[in-house]
Amino acid sequence: MAAIRIIGIDPGLRRTGWGVVESQGNALRFIESGSVTSDDRCDLAIRLKQIHDGLVTVLARLTPDEAAVEQTFVNKDASATLKLGQARGVALLVPALAGLSVAEYAPNQVKKTVIGVGHGDKAQIHMMVKVLMPKANFDSHDAADALAIAICHAHHRQSITARLAALAK
Amino acid sequence: MAAIRIIGIDPGLRRTGWGVVESQGNALRFIESGSVTSDDRCDLAIRLKQIHDGLVTVLARLTPDEAAVEQTFVNKDASATLKLGQARGVALLVPALAGLSVAEYAPNQVKKTVIGVGHGDKAQIHMMVKVLMPKANFDSHDAADALAIAICHAHHRQSITARLAALAK
Repeated sequence: MAAIRIIGIDPGLRRTGWGVVESQGNALRFIESGSVTSDDRCDLAIRLKQIHDGLVTVLARLTPDEAAVEQTFVNKDASATLKLGQARGVALLVPALAGLSVAEYAPNQVKKTVIGVGHGDKAQIHMMVKVLMPKANFDSHDAADALAIAICHAHHRQSITARLAALAK
Repeated sequence: MAAIRIIGIDPGLRRTGWGVVESQGNALRFIESGSVTSDDRCDLAIRLKQIHDGLVTVLARLTPDEAAVEQTFVNKDASATLKLGQARGVALLVPALAGLSVAEYAPNQVKKTVIGVGHGDKAQIHMMVKVLMPKANFDSHDAADALAIAICHAHHRQSITARLAALAK
């Protein structure tokens, strides 16, 4: 079974986390993680371009096969939701432009996959990312969350692939 | 005074309107307008790519010098705000990637510039777009709104330019 390289993205206007893992059968391998920041003294369009350019560079360097983006938590602050939406638009667009399929996962799906239950704090997620991939290192919460999203996709794409294989028999 | 070509963009996930005008001194000339739609049976990332590709094609064909995008009205429906935010992220990003400056105007600024007061319905805006540019034609409300945004930018960039010229004297 070929190794599949997955990029997880946790979008944010100020800081967009990303994490790349390789999935082969049941094995999961940490490749790299980091975050792309935008300069809040710049105009919004320029900030979105900074996120775009950062993600384009990561995709070109690490050449993932598939992407997964966290479904934004819609909170009560409309202005924050709008900001997040704009960053998320760019986070979804960049891998689509590179020809990658882009899966979306709700935060509680990510938690359920990584820590076994649909709720839990960031510290628990980060600990489990370390348990699942001891070599993982991350410079920020967003990078750790992005790795959790990539792990979630590795898990779900595998069960989908297994189900399709079973159907084909 | 050289003619400046401006693209106004009214972002929306289902339909993003655009309108291109040329501004020279006090004169305003209609160039073209239209809208870019996305297929709601597709995944979100693909829909955002459709908006991206449509706007890229318009920019390549009509080569505007500057862009203006309407500031999204933040309504109470968080899910609608998020959708709009994602489309708006792409609408801001595409001209920025093409090296254009991207101005933002609030809906009431656009109305104030085009119809003279900060409130008014769509029909009034469309009528004034026709009065200001008799040759204008538009296939949708979104295209008409996009033309109004371009007109708003033509007006404001001119007053800024005049003020800078006066300061330089």
